[in-house]
Amino acid sequence: MITQDTIVALATPSGAGAIAVIRLSGKDAIIIAEKQFKSVSGKTLSKQPTHTIHLGHIIDGDRVLDEVLVSVFKDPNSYTGENVVEISCHGSNYIQQEIIQLFLRNGCRMASAGEFTLRAFLNGKLDLSQAEAVADLIASDNKASHQIAMQQMRGGFSSEIAKLREELLNFASLIELELDFAEEDVEFADRTQFKELINRIINVLKRLIDSFAVGNVIKNGIPVAIVGEPNVGKSTLLNALLNEERAIVSEVAGTTRDTIEDEISIGGIGFRFIDTAGIRDTKDVVESIGIRRTFEKMDQAQVVVYLFDAKSIFSQKACVETISIEIEKIKNKYPQKPLVVIANKVDVISSKELEELKNSIKDIKPISAKTNIGVEDLKITLTNFVNTGALRNNETIVTNTRHYDSLLKALEEVSKVKDGLNTGLSGDLLAIDIRQALYHFGEITGEISSDDLLGNIFANFCIGK
Amino acid sequence: MITQDTIVALATPSGAGAIAVIRLSGKDAIIIAEKQFKSVSGKTLSKQPTHTIHLGHIIDGDRVLDEVLVSVFKDPNSYTGENVVEISCHGSNYIQQEIIQLFLRNGCRMASAGEFTLRAFLNGKLDLSQAEAVADLIASDNKASHQIAMQQMRGGFSSEIAKLREELLNFASLIELELDFAEEDVEFADRTQFKELINRIINVLKRLIDSFAVGNVIKNGIPVAIVGEPNVGKSTLLNALLNEERAIVSEVAGTTRDTIEDEISIGGIGFRFIDTAGIRDTKDVVESIGIRRTFEKMDQAQVVVYLFDAKSIFSQKACVETISIEIEKIKNKYPQKPLVVIANKVDVISSKELEELKNSIKDIKPISAKTNIGVEDLKITLTNFVNTGALRNNETIVTNTRHYDSLLKALEEVSKVKDGLNTGLSGDLLAIDIRQALYHFGEITGEISSDDLLGNIFANFCIGK
Repeated sequence: MITQDTIVALATPSGAGAIAVIRLSGKDAIIIAEKQFKSVSGKTLSKQPTHTIHLGHIIDGDRVLDEVLVSVFKDPNSYTGENVVEISCHGSNYIQQEIIQLFLRNGCRMASAGEFTLRAFLNGKLDLSQAEAVADLIASDNKASHQIAMQQMRGGFSSEIAKLREELLNFASLIELELDFAEEDVEFADRTQFKELINRIINVLKRLIDSFAVGNVIKNGIPVAIVGEPNVGKSTLLNALLNEERAIVSEVAGTTRDTIEDEISIGGIGFRFIDTAGIRDTKDVVESIGIRRTFEKMDQAQVVVYLFDAKSIFSQKACVETISIEIEKIKNKYPQKPLVVIANKVDVISSKELEELKNSIKDIKPISAKTNIGVEDLKITLTNFVNTGALRNNETIVTNTRHYDSLLKALEEVSKVKDGLNTGLSGDLLAIDIRQALYHFGEITGEISSDDLLGNIFANFCIGK
Repeated sequence: MITQDTIVALATPSGAGAIAVIRLSGKDAIIIAEKQFKSVSGKTLSKQPTHTIHLGHIIDGDRVLDEVLVSVFKDPNSYTGENVVEISCHGSNYIQQEIIQLFLRNGCRMASAGEFTLRAFLNGKLDLSQAEAVADLIASDNKASHQIAMQQMRGGFSSEIAKLREELLNFASLIELELDFAEEDVEFADRTQFKELINRIINVLKRLIDSFAVGNVIKNGIPVAIVGEPNVGKSTLLNALLNEERAIVSEVAGTTRDTIEDEISIGGIGFRFIDTAGIRDTKDVVESIGIRRTFEKMDQAQVVVYLFDAKSIFSQKACVETISIEIEKIKNKYPQKPLVVIANKVDVISSKELEELKNSIKDIKPISAKTNIGVEDLKITLTNFVNTGALRNNETIVTNTRHYDSLLKALEEVSKVKDGLNTGLSGDLLAIDIRQALYHFGEITGEISSDDLLGNIFANFCIGK
């Protein structure tokens, strides 16, 4: 896929701002820009050194479109590895469009989504996993997802994969060398050493594959279901956690019929809170749909927060037994899922009543969503559920499903190699499995890629990147 | 107002995009940026020449915030005339905020609205009318308003004012010189020549003041009221002009109760179309409010388009006399206002009927809003109402109310000078009036300014500009 044409796109968000940046990339980018640009000091753009900025006007015949700053980047020292021109113009939508239209009429075509980064990949400026990290970086909205994307973009993941690949490649070459001397029945590759190597590779692959569990939740936010009977204060708790009035709060039991989701960052980790209808039996059709959804949401959640109204117990509106049964139900249905049991509205019960409550239902967290008592404590409890050890130690964390799939396939092939070694499989068959594993490593960094794959990946980028 | 501190702000629109630009300006901008920037090639920012770009990372202690391009502009060769650093980072909201927060913690303060341009003005990079044109340029959304703002930003208006000011200043000096020799009763200033000069200045001022009428409509769009009986197709016409479904169209007479406004650019000029309820008598309270509004809107409109249903005349639902009376009413109420009379729905009458109609009501434009017949023709008619002569001839057009006010005041003072010359007013009194006129010229370009005035002007800018 050799691209000779020059592409143009708005690189900054659309809408009016102080300035906007329009980006051109391609063999002729500088020459095309030069024709529509009049430097205030009479400079010729193409004669300027790379990484320099020039003040002047974008002109369309006699018409002055804007006073701009033009940045020149010369092949290969640019983001795409091609000649690149960035035009910093006034941020009016009208001006942005006029300038882009001018270049479309004069030798450029509109860039497709992610095409600048695609060209960077094709020109070897970054590998495929780094290119994917660029999109992750733009999408990152909390410290953890930002850190992982940043590490991946800077090549942390690629270098780990590259190391595995190199070790396997050495192995493969020796095995294949043996094949050349097949009649002499020699073993260049020390089988014991190889077993060790394969075990080591399997361990690394397993660690990377395991990291996807935490990587995935960090990338997408950790889903937390907040459940409990109607009117116990679930929406109020959500609001307290969100510090804003998102969910509808009312005194009528069963107000929250639709599940409401919102994301907040606690301690740099994204949490996706799901406020759900209560789980009591109901004859109201609409609400019963809400209850079904509550169970569906609990299925998807990583953490369940069960809430009950401490006051209702002492005002005889609810009884400890019912609540205990509810809690047991959830525990039995999701034995592996962390469950936080919360006694809400503790601001309106006495400390003696609270003690009584703590004795009858174990491991409860007393809070008052309304007055913010215990809310910070709950946030700490929630962050403790996330294993951020890998994050703290700067270990590689896999967040991309495509990488995860390739790692799984690589593990499968490497495991076959291990079995082959144990059963004394012939070198030619071993070599096939090793080549397969290498293929899957290559998929991750893009040494192996297809137009379809690239199309899929870069279609998810925004235009201008 | 000497500013020694360094300001920071996002210069591109907020929201996620491929890239975002964060701008720093101030004496220490480069030194502050240098501390948080690690060049990939180990360069020191402050040692780099002006107008150069450097690849590296924004770092917060050990943490890498982003891979960025940093542009360096050195005092006085920058937009603000100060040291300026522009950081082109990945367009994530999270990253933008983290970088801005980092600089706020490390020696910068948040820029207020328009502060970059205010500093450019205070440092003599542009005069006040040019600074105001920057905001107009960013707000420009059609060819005409863009052209005027561009001309003003490039100093077209300022140079015209400066010329007048210089000529008056010469005049003033000579008159004041006479005062020094008052006892000798000499006249350095040839009164005949001065009368000529004053007349010339008055003519230029009048032309500039007159241009405000067209400048104002170009800047704000030309208001066109579309009126007529209910169900004659006003909303359909508006939609045909707008090429989109904005107004509600229905077969029930009197559907459009609220006035709906929309702006389109025809031939580079912005038109603000106002679709109004019909003007028939009604007992419906809500609709009668709509009718009152119709008249209010006609008051404000520059052009009135009266629409009637050609078909209804031949199906006996309306009669020519009623329509003629309505047209006469509008003509009598607004004798100066251009009126376009439109016979709509001509697609469903015969050409014989159309001829008949043309004979009974004069100067009608036959159109069919539904099938787009005559709509382009109507657009041409509308653009012809706008005096774009000045625009074509690149004459200075005043669009700013503040400038308009100052020009009026200057004209008042210059007229006093003229009267003074005619009545042989003494030199010292003449000099006072001339100084007053000079003061008002100075207000326009900002040679005369106050903190209040500057505050008012720049508060309308966006932050980051």
